Amino acid sequence: MLLGAIEAGGTKFVLAVGNQEGDILDKLTIPTERPDQTIPKIVAYFKDKGIKKLGLGAFGPIDLNQKSPTYGQLQKTPKTAWVDYPLGAVLQEKLSVPVVIDTDVNVAAMSEAKFGNATDVDSCLYITVGTGIGGGFYYRGQTLNGLSHPEIGHIKVPRHPDDRYQGTCPSHGDCLEGLAAGPAIEKRWGRKGDQLVDVAEVWEMEAFYLAQALMTFIYVLSPERIILGGGVMKQKQLFPLIRKYVLEMLNGYVSSPYLTADQIDQYIVAPGLTDEAGIKGALYLVMD
Amino acid sequence: MLLGAIEAGGTKFVLAVGNQEGDILDKLTIPTERPDQTIPKIVAYFKDKGIKKLGLGAFGPIDLNQKSPTYGQLQKTPKTAWVDYPLGAVLQEKLSVPVVIDTDVNVAAMSEAKFGNATDVDSCLYITVGTGIGGGFYYRGQTLNGLSHPEIGHIKVPRHPDDRYQGTCPSHGDCLEGLAAGPAIEKRWGRKGDQLVDVAEVWEMEAFYLAQALMTFIYVLSPERIILGGGVMKQKQLFPLIRKYVLEMLNGYVSSPYLTADQIDQYIVAPGLTDEAGIKGALYLVMD
Ligand SMILES: Nc1ncnc2c1ncn2[C@@H]1O[C@H](COP(=O)(O)OP(=O)(O)O)[C@@H](O)[C@H]1O
Ligand SMILES: Nc1ncnc2c1ncn2[C@@H]1O[C@H](COP(=O)(O)OP(=O)(O)O)[C@@H](O)[C@H]1O
Ligand SMILES: [Zn+2]
Ligand SMILES: [Zn+2]
Repeated sequence: MLLGAIEAGGTKFVLAVGNQEGDILDKLTIPTERPDQTIPKIVAYFKDKGIKKLGLGAFGPIDLNQKSPTYGQLQKTPKTAWVDYPLGAVLQEKLSVPVVIDTDVNVAAMSEAKFGNATDVDSCLYITVGTGIGGGFYYRGQTLNGLSHPEIGHIKVPRHPDDRYQGTCPSHGDCLEGLAAGPAIEKRWGRKGDQLVDVAEVWEMEAFYLAQALMTFIYVLSPERIILGGGVMKQKQLFPLIRKYVLEMLNGYVSSPYLTADQIDQYIVAPGLTDEAGIKGALYLVMD
Repeated sequence: MLLGAIEAGGTKFVLAVGNQEGDILDKLTIPTERPDQTIPKIVAYFKDKGIKKLGLGAFGPIDLNQKSPTYGQLQKTPKTAWVDYPLGAVLQEKLSVPVVIDTDVNVAAMSEAKFGNATDVDSCLYITVGTGIGGGFYYRGQTLNGLSHPEIGHIKVPRHPDDRYQGTCPSHGDCLEGLAAGPAIEKRWGRKGDQLVDVAEVWEMEAFYLAQALMTFIYVLSPERIILGGGVMKQKQLFPLIRKYVLEMLNGYVSSPYLTADQIDQYIVAPGLTDEAGIKGALYLVMD
């Protein structure tokens, strides 16, 4: 049985056909334009491929409450042409196949659990630190959605004592995303992250904020693995700094062999999948 | 088939026999003494009851990682006679039946989802505000445990502008539990909560802290219902105050009909089960 998969992102859509074994058999990448431009290209691609189901990993916010009348509908996304667009319903109708939807970050978490750096555990928190900060959570075969989907980037974090920057979040100012996503780094220090590689205090402060957030996530979700991806995490020097801060801040409170100097580098890790994480995860949504 | 259930608490153990339909057929309450006093009473109670499995909802911290060599073992609990006591293994061996264990708060969350105030939704966060602050999370048929079990009482919360109290938590000082559990109220204001009913600022501040914490939980877990129990929540005037603060603080950020003035009193609610929540939840752990 052939299955369809879509990774819908803010800049590009990846379309693919795969099988029940999780293999990608064919793939096409198209730019994210307006719905009236992008949707016909998607329909044309899948039209004669004979897919029986479609998995969709989508940028958000998107309504994933299956009891909601607007299930599968995009919400107030910065891509204004897509606001309130019923992406799930449109694809289901135009392609005449059942569509299973999840957020891009949940799909990434599931992909890491099935094929990547969390195959040996039962739960995995995937966090992307990029233009925004978002997260997906995989737990024993399911991803976490509920009232809405998690918005882990918007939790409050205590301020670094040396930080006077007010934060970029239009809703909260100095929430985690407002203080630690890529644009906050750029505005606070006057240059983009990739131009600040040698400025030690940038990464000390960044690691401080991310570690504070990880503490909260450990207390609330107790994930068996934490995977940090996204553009900002390309600064690999962040990993040892974050691990050091997490151990210091937890101060032995949660007891686990993973939360020790010996093993924390197996607990807080980089993604195991790179290019194919999103599309493989979308395919996985419709594999039996 | 007859099933056994135990609700193990810091002051009492409730022992019961039930059936596959969730009915409690027989029940006995015994005080929590030392293990060498309590365990023989448990064995005597279940000896000739013909139970085939045993569900155990236990006070904690307790090791619930099934891959751990110390699975089912109590950890650094304030009840010193029980520190490192392998409660799960001992019961399994002495009663010769499979034992399924979960935390008391997870069991309460599941019980509310199956029999109480969250039967119409797929996820439910149960929080107790008492001597400590703890929480359990039910999600689509499962409860949340992972690296360890969640310790939601120990997250950081921003301080109330009028609060100078340093907090009671031996590990963190002014974490949520350190600022808002029953003992923090007593130490900050000089009297126990039930003696402060008429002091409005006590409940304003308490509601502020609990609402800050609920915000974090909504961003991270996105629960479809939040149930607040425990001794402190007997002050029913807290509910409208907490709901008001949550709406103010979220400021429309998460979009859901529940997060509106109209419906929030169906979202943040009191427990639906009172006396039997713990023991029914423990029974539910072993029902098919
Ligand atoms: N090598 C890098 N070092 C530091 N920051 C980076 C690097 N690459 C990208 N970023 C920052 O990450 C953000 C983009 O994140 P990215 O994950 O690539 O995309 P998006 O989050 O939009 O999907 C930008 O703010 C950018 O400055
Ligand atoms: N009616 C009440 N009003 C305010 N606080 C109360 C009330 N009853 C109990 N408390 C407080 O709750 C705490 C005990 O919590 P409780 O949930 O009864 O037990 P535990 O958490 O130990 O299981 C104490 O700090 C007590 O002062
Ligand atoms: Zn924010
Ligand atoms: Zn604490």
